[in-house]
Amino acid sequence: MPPEDRYLIVSTDGHAGLLPEKYGDYVDPKYRETFDDKIALEIARRAAREKDFLIDEFNEKWRAGNESKLAAAWDSDLRNEVVDGDGVAAEVLFPDGITERNAPPFGAGLGLRPWGVDPELQWAGARAHNRWIAEFCQMEPIRRIGLAIVPMLYDVEQAVNEVEWAHDNGLRGILIPALMGDHDPYNHPKFYPVWRACEERGMVIHNHSGPSPDYDFELPGAMGVFLVEFAWWAARPLWHMIFGGVFEEFPKLKYCLTEVSEFWVPSMLEMMDVRASVKHTSGKHCDFRSNLSMKPSEYFDRNCWLSASALFDEGSTAVRHDIGMDNIMWGTDFPHPEGSWPHTREKMLKYMTGIPDQELTKLLGTNAVACYDLDAAALNEIASRIGPQKSLFVGEAD
Amino acid sequence: MPPEDRYLIVSTDGHAGLLPEKYGDYVDPKYRETFDDKIALEIARRAAREKDFLIDEFNEKWRAGNESKLAAAWDSDLRNEVVDGDGVAAEVLFPDGITERNAPPFGAGLGLRPWGVDPELQWAGARAHNRWIAEFCQMEPIRRIGLAIVPMLYDVEQAVNEVEWAHDNGLRGILIPALMGDHDPYNHPKFYPVWRACEERGMVIHNHSGPSPDYDFELPGAMGVFLVEFAWWAARPLWHMIFGGVFEEFPKLKYCLTEVSEFWVPSMLEMMDVRASVKHTSGKHCDFRSNLSMKPSEYFDRNCWLSASALFDEGSTAVRHDIGMDNIMWGTDFPHPEGSWPHTREKMLKYMTGIPDQELTKLLGTNAVACYDLDAAALNEIASRIGPQKSLFVGEAD
Repeated sequence: MPPEDRYLIVSTDGHAGLLPEKYGDYVDPKYRETFDDKIALEIARRAAREKDFLIDEFNEKWRAGNESKLAAAWDSDLRNEVVDGDGVAAEVLFPDGITERNAPPFGAGLGLRPWGVDPELQWAGARAHNRWIAEFCQMEPIRRIGLAIVPMLYDVEQAVNEVEWAHDNGLRGILIPALMGDHDPYNHPKFYPVWRACEERGMVIHNHSGPSPDYDFELPGAMGVFLVEFAWWAARPLWHMIFGGVFEEFPKLKYCLTEVSEFWVPSMLEMMDVRASVKHTSGKHCDFRSNLSMKPSEYFDRNCWLSASALFDEGSTAVRHDIGMDNIMWGTDFPHPEGSWPHTREKMLKYMTGIPDQELTKLLGTNAVACYDLDAAALNEIASRIGPQKSLFVGEAD
Repeated sequence: MPPEDRYLIVSTDGHAGLLPEKYGDYVDPKYRETFDDKIALEIARRAAREKDFLIDEFNEKWRAGNESKLAAAWDSDLRNEVVDGDGVAAEVLFPDGITERNAPPFGAGLGLRPWGVDPELQWAGARAHNRWIAEFCQMEPIRRIGLAIVPMLYDVEQAVNEVEWAHDNGLRGILIPALMGDHDPYNHPKFYPVWRACEERGMVIHNHSGPSPDYDFELPGAMGVFLVEFAWWAARPLWHMIFGGVFEEFPKLKYCLTEVSEFWVPSMLEMMDVRASVKHTSGKHCDFRSNLSMKPSEYFDRNCWLSASALFDEGSTAVRHDIGMDNIMWGTDFPHPEGSWPHTREKMLKYMTGIPDQELTKLLGTNAVACYDLDAAALNEIASRIGPQKSLFVGEAD
């Protein structure tokens, strides 16, 4: 039974990862020497990148007094403590624990770029993380919804094998590369075996913000350009899959787009529907709708979810109905500095006070239960203990 | 004096171009042999591409009975006849006369891709078209607003020289590459001399839909993906220039985005404003707003125009106020098959009936007069003779 006076919260955007040097223990022995050779350089590169994006003042203020809790990126007991404190019953776990500090090796982190990397090594890094995150989730199988990293662009069979391995080891979904570079895009039928393997096992497919081509951040306004474009780069697989007929072919496949901000999504759904209705150009390749029995927005409604994390604000609140109240989920983004922690309660109340109970119930928890097919009874029991009081959210929006 | 009972129409999206083989007369002598070697292959490639995009049935229906008029792509007298028939007093002239059949040689057409081409040859093709379009416009200097093709990514000095040449020869703006490939993007200060040359001469900078990376159109849904993405590829220079501080540095510079459809533009303006207000990430490169004294949408309002052609429909009508009634202009897209010709009158009435007189006046004509600094008195005289009766537009929308 759902608790009467508290909300069940499933954070659909969490991050977990080992300290970089610790991934060595999870790398296949044949890549161990390469790992030892490269890891110091990788760590230095990530530190430099963090310095570029996060000004010391902001980063240090966020860390001040909380440093000891950041080990929750990889420490199981500490994780439970932090998550309990946030009122979160369960979490979806992406890689890149503390920003990029705790990313898997060999370019197998959130960015998962399909160029400038050695595909074999990127796979090795992905597998190292997958082994670790599987262990980490097995310690709390109810509360930890782990995702496997699957760099599926290079080799479909290897990707299918990894989906199977991930499922067999308790993971609940996969993170796929967002940028397709010169590789075949996701509307290519060669990827059907991956989608099939996921559909059969209820493994949810994810893209998460972060991946982008290289920007020269020394140029004026480059960060503004990046901020305008990042969600688009992350979301491109969505329309490739929709127009490619992937959800037509695999009607139970689940796809989730995470931390891309929300206010622009309704206009993108409109864009897809408008484009699908274009009649004036009708060439050899223009019968692209012949593989679709529904409007693009209807596939979104049936097969896709949006994980509204970190940036969930007035804009997100305003468009929740246009996105669909069954398709939007919340997340804390712990332990990333742009996330809600360590002020999760205040931030939730700031933007969610006044949202009707029935909507909050979905947004905070039951949509995720449906998307990831979670153990509702067990989670409700946890929520009865640690979930935030419903009464807190009653009142006028801030 | 503006005509009392008729609208002044300036079509801000027209196309003009020679038959491909005729461009040889305008190519620099040193490239003439290369031109002769390559032109047959270019013609064949374009024919194949047209076949892919335009189904015979559609293309042939459009042409049926109108073939003789299509020579208006390059025939001055015929152009006047067609334009008079459309009620159009003046036209902005882009390259690629009849779709891609009449594109300038060496990849210097609308797509203007900065890769897979020889920059020197692309410049030669651009110059050939610029010489011809200058002649074509000089035959009707009041009614023809010609644009020079300026592949500015390779060499800034050459681009500045071309802007100067174009202005000296009566052209009123430039078309620049939309796709930047591996070249420096438009927020790079190295392009300041080009912007300065345009600002000083009132030369309007343009991007037009069409450019895109390669899509494999044999894949299912690829056309849907293209249709979702084409406007984004065409529009990327907009936010590079805005965030790059280009309109801050050159407050009188004018930029026009053509045939990208309109319904998505308000959400993009919102996107830019939201991103410019981001505070949570604040690293070394995150003071990107320091070069802006206004919100992105305010630069759009002051410096940018949207040429709403071809696809102007209910969606465009609905968002005209959000875009700004001083920033939106109409066009016929003649002689492209997706344009309004040969049914311009019917299509205008279908979507514009019921729009208030004062708004139609701007949309159809006076916004373009302001954008291109046109001779209003002379154009009004032409409109008094050929412009559509205002009374036709009175009534309820269709």
